Amino acid sequence: MTLAPPPSSRVQLTEDGKLRHFLSVEHLPRSLLEDILDTAASFVDVGGRAIKKVPLLRGKTVVNLFFESSTRTRSTFELAAKRLSADVLNLDIAKSATSKGETLLDTLRNLEAMAADMFVVRHGDSGAAHFIAEHVCPQVAIINGGDGRHAHPTQGMLDMLTIRRHKGSFENLSVAIVGDILHSRVARSNMLALKTLGCPDIRVIAPKTLLPVGIEQYGVKVYTDMTTGLKDVDVVIMLRLQRERMAGGLLPSEGEFYRLFGLTTARLAGAKPDAIVMHPGPINRGVEIESAVADGNQSVILNQVTYGIAVRMAVLSMAMSGQTAQRQFEQEKAQ
Amino acid sequence: MTLAPPPSSRVQLTEDGKLRHFLSVEHLPRSLLEDILDTAASFVDVGGRAIKKVPLLRGKTVVNLFFESSTRTRSTFELAAKRLSADVLNLDIAKSATSKGETLLDTLRNLEAMAADMFVVRHGDSGAAHFIAEHVCPQVAIINGGDGRHAHPTQGMLDMLTIRRHKGSFENLSVAIVGDILHSRVARSNMLALKTLGCPDIRVIAPKTLLPVGIEQYGVKVYTDMTTGLKDVDVVIMLRLQRERMAGGLLPSEGEFYRLFGLTTARLAGAKPDAIVMHPGPINRGVEIESAVADGNQSVILNQVTYGIAVRMAVLSMAMSGQTAQRQFEQEKAQ
Amino acid sequence: MTLAPPPSSRVQLTEDGKLRHFLSVEHLPRSLLEDILDTAASFVDVGGRAIKKVPLLRGKTVVNLFFESSTRTRSTFELAAKRLSADVLNLDIAKSATSKGETLLDTLRNLEAMAADMFVVRHGDSGAAHFIAEHVCPQVAIINGGDGRHAHPTQGMLDMLTIRRHKGSFENLSVAIVGDILHSRVARSNMLALKTLGCPDIRVIAPKTLLPVGIEQYGVKVYTDMTTGLKDVDVVIMLRLQRERMAGGLLPSEGEFYRLFGLTTARLAGAKPDAIVMHPGPINRGVEIESAVADGNQSVILNQVTYGIAVRMAVLSMAMSGQTAQRQFEQEKAQ
Repeated sequence: MTLAPPPSSRVQLTEDGKLRHFLSVEHLPRSLLEDILDTAASFVDVGGRAIKKVPLLRGKTVVNLFFESSTRTRSTFELAAKRLSADVLNLDIAKSATSKGETLLDTLRNLEAMAADMFVVRHGDSGAAHFIAEHVCPQVAIINGGDGRHAHPTQGMLDMLTIRRHKGSFENLSVAIVGDILHSRVARSNMLALKTLGCPDIRVIAPKTLLPVGIEQYGVKVYTDMTTGLKDVDVVIMLRLQRERMAGGLLPSEGEFYRLFGLTTARLAGAKPDAIVMHPGPINRGVEIESAVADGNQSVILNQVTYGIAVRMAVLSMAMSGQTAQRQFEQEKAQ
Repeated sequence: MTLAPPPSSRVQLTEDGKLRHFLSVEHLPRSLLEDILDTAASFVDVGGRAIKKVPLLRGKTVVNLFFESSTRTRSTFELAAKRLSADVLNLDIAKSATSKGETLLDTLRNLEAMAADMFVVRHGDSGAAHFIAEHVCPQVAIINGGDGRHAHPTQGMLDMLTIRRHKGSFENLSVAIVGDILHSRVARSNMLALKTLGCPDIRVIAPKTLLPVGIEQYGVKVYTDMTTGLKDVDVVIMLRLQRERMAGGLLPSEGEFYRLFGLTTARLAGAKPDAIVMHPGPINRGVEIESAVADGNQSVILNQVTYGIAVRMAVLSMAMSGQTAQRQFEQEKAQ
Repeated sequence: MTLAPPPSSRVQLTEDGKLRHFLSVEHLPRSLLEDILDTAASFVDVGGRAIKKVPLLRGKTVVNLFFESSTRTRSTFELAAKRLSADVLNLDIAKSATSKGETLLDTLRNLEAMAADMFVVRHGDSGAAHFIAEHVCPQVAIINGGDGRHAHPTQGMLDMLTIRRHKGSFENLSVAIVGDILHSRVARSNMLALKTLGCPDIRVIAPKTLLPVGIEQYGVKVYTDMTTGLKDVDVVIMLRLQRERMAGGLLPSEGEFYRLFGLTTARLAGAKPDAIVMHPGPINRGVEIESAVADGNQSVILNQVTYGIAVRMAVLSMAMSGQTAQRQFEQEKAQ
């Protein structure tokens, strides 16, 4: 499938600026990102309750459309939807759609005709979720669960929630993102979200071969050395080495990568004493991060997972509510 | 598995004529088919509601028993059951039953012992659902989700609901069914349902090699030419070219089939101006139907999908209710 | 994965002796086993109700963690959890965890961070469920769904429930367990449970090559001949011939096994006239049991399946309740 490039339009928002699809943190105003974080914060407590369920999406149908397999991301969305009392349908589209020769667009329109309310889309191609939201099923609320190298906006927002809950605000923070920036939709979503939320010092640390062309446009400082890059930062976001996505030649070896860019206890000592360590998971122990750091008391990696459920609950419920409002608005206009 | 031929008995009905299993539209009285359509019509609205859920099957266990993989049909039954508030268990029997050498009958009896209330059965052999209803688990309500070349009765009924909602009644209609009649359980279910519901002019259009022997017994007119067959019809039901089921030799080529029997804009012009175009999906664009027709304003293909959920909700709830009544009746008789 | 040997500790119980994890019937007091049976008995009726649902686990998340595929066991736990109103997440860990190089422990800790309340663990290694309960996720209630040759405690308890409901009590019973004792976690769980519940005459019948070393320590009588072993017993528990687990050489052939140890009508005649016949399923007809016996009126094999749902509901709800109490206790102690 060849897809149109992600548009810069307001496709994500209703006419009065509410979230309707969640495709990318790009082009979303600071107030909306803060709204997502506030809503998510209210859901963090739900996970600790005896009855971890709220009726916000009762009677709604959420379809997990995974064109790219990811048990982990699918599970978090499934749990988030179920805790909102939605009905969940898991579809492995890669297998089902092609086996009978149906086109992707026909598959999606069929699901829309079954009165699905929301698609969580995971796709290997950049822009897939945008394309579906704009051109295929605009009546269905679309949540981007990761598209190619483009975006992974719920991961971005759960990282922001983690930072806010541990550091209070973004205004005086230094945040370093370390590793395979080039292939990382997480890095892209994080840089954009940090910028919008007012973080004054965003750093990326990577070997030159793993930096995208034009990285400066994100308003970040680029480092190719860990010691200088990590100096006095408040937050270290380690990226997963995307071995499965790399065609050979960009890296000498895993050992070499770890020697130069792995987060060790010694290197972390250069950051602020209360710096937190984050990672989107799953972690490669001894490849991008030392076990002692991953399991150490500066690590908030498992907190990220907890906040991930809360952020997904927030985004699902907000987009559902915005999509419903938009439909009513359009129906009234049509009358 | 070799199965007994489908019986002509009243196995589908309770002693006072209510639906108990839904195996085939064959041998069902017109009043019952109309009852299904009326019940389904009441469920069409549920799909449009904010809360798409009714509590009719709360606390019931519906098991999707798919011996033949079909994500699409499974999804529609899963959604229908969940909107009725049932608990759903999806089983890929093909994989699980044989792996430990258990016989099919033992697998079914085990599920019955787990207090399953209903099986949706999809099977490659004609008569499989009948056999289970009659000989294996008569206490469980059985819904035929497609068996070999025999029947696909929920597809048949959703087609009838589509026709009734667009054309009002069956009494003055001309309906053409086009394509691979020989291998199509959809065609068979549709011919029987149309006959029972009083449609006076049922036509089948197909190459001679794709017509079953004895097709006349269904009370249909046979055409081997699209121009004469489609003339002035109200409804065109295109069938999917079942490439995966055909052993070679019956057709010269897909291109040849499309040239002679594909539904193009030009050919559709021979039908009534307000004729509707139907297809059970998934569609093969450019094989049995032109894209311009599939997406055109006479196409009701996506409406069929929407009505499919409603028909499945109707059949699941009616059979559950009938099965329960029958069991009570038998218990009283036994006392 | 190499695992620590199963400990003899009180890891399964809260500080005041309530069930908290269910890992093995070993080391559990008779009163607790009877408590499980009583609770299960109250759930047997739920399966016969029009609405087969109780709200005991509403808002709880039960994760089926199957490292070893078993559709049958997974289905019974899934149904049990759903009838308790829990949300269920099915994970095929074997596929998902290793595909991205994450360690097993990281996968489990991630699920814990998602606020999962309970894991049902099926694993090929003996001691896996114990290890997780003690060292990995002590905050999550762990239910052993079968680990290597070690234990299958819910199967053991459903067998006990079956015996109690058919025979009243264990006090004067002779029970024979027949077949591949060596490879059977079911046999092990049954011997331990029968002993604890006061059964005075537990017999195992097997060829010498299928008897574990040290079998006497279980307080059972060993027979290598069916005629003497079955004489006047009240209960016959046939084991499944674990063909998939046996490396060649332990048995001459299936035919030979059946000739010597298969349960035939003739052999069953040597037991008491009202003896019941049990089997954990799936049965191998004509390998360890004659079809006429499996389907005969002394067979309670399908009752076992029904009781299996009830026992799993009992264990899930009791462990959930105990785990919650333990957490509160620890929180109070920490203050």
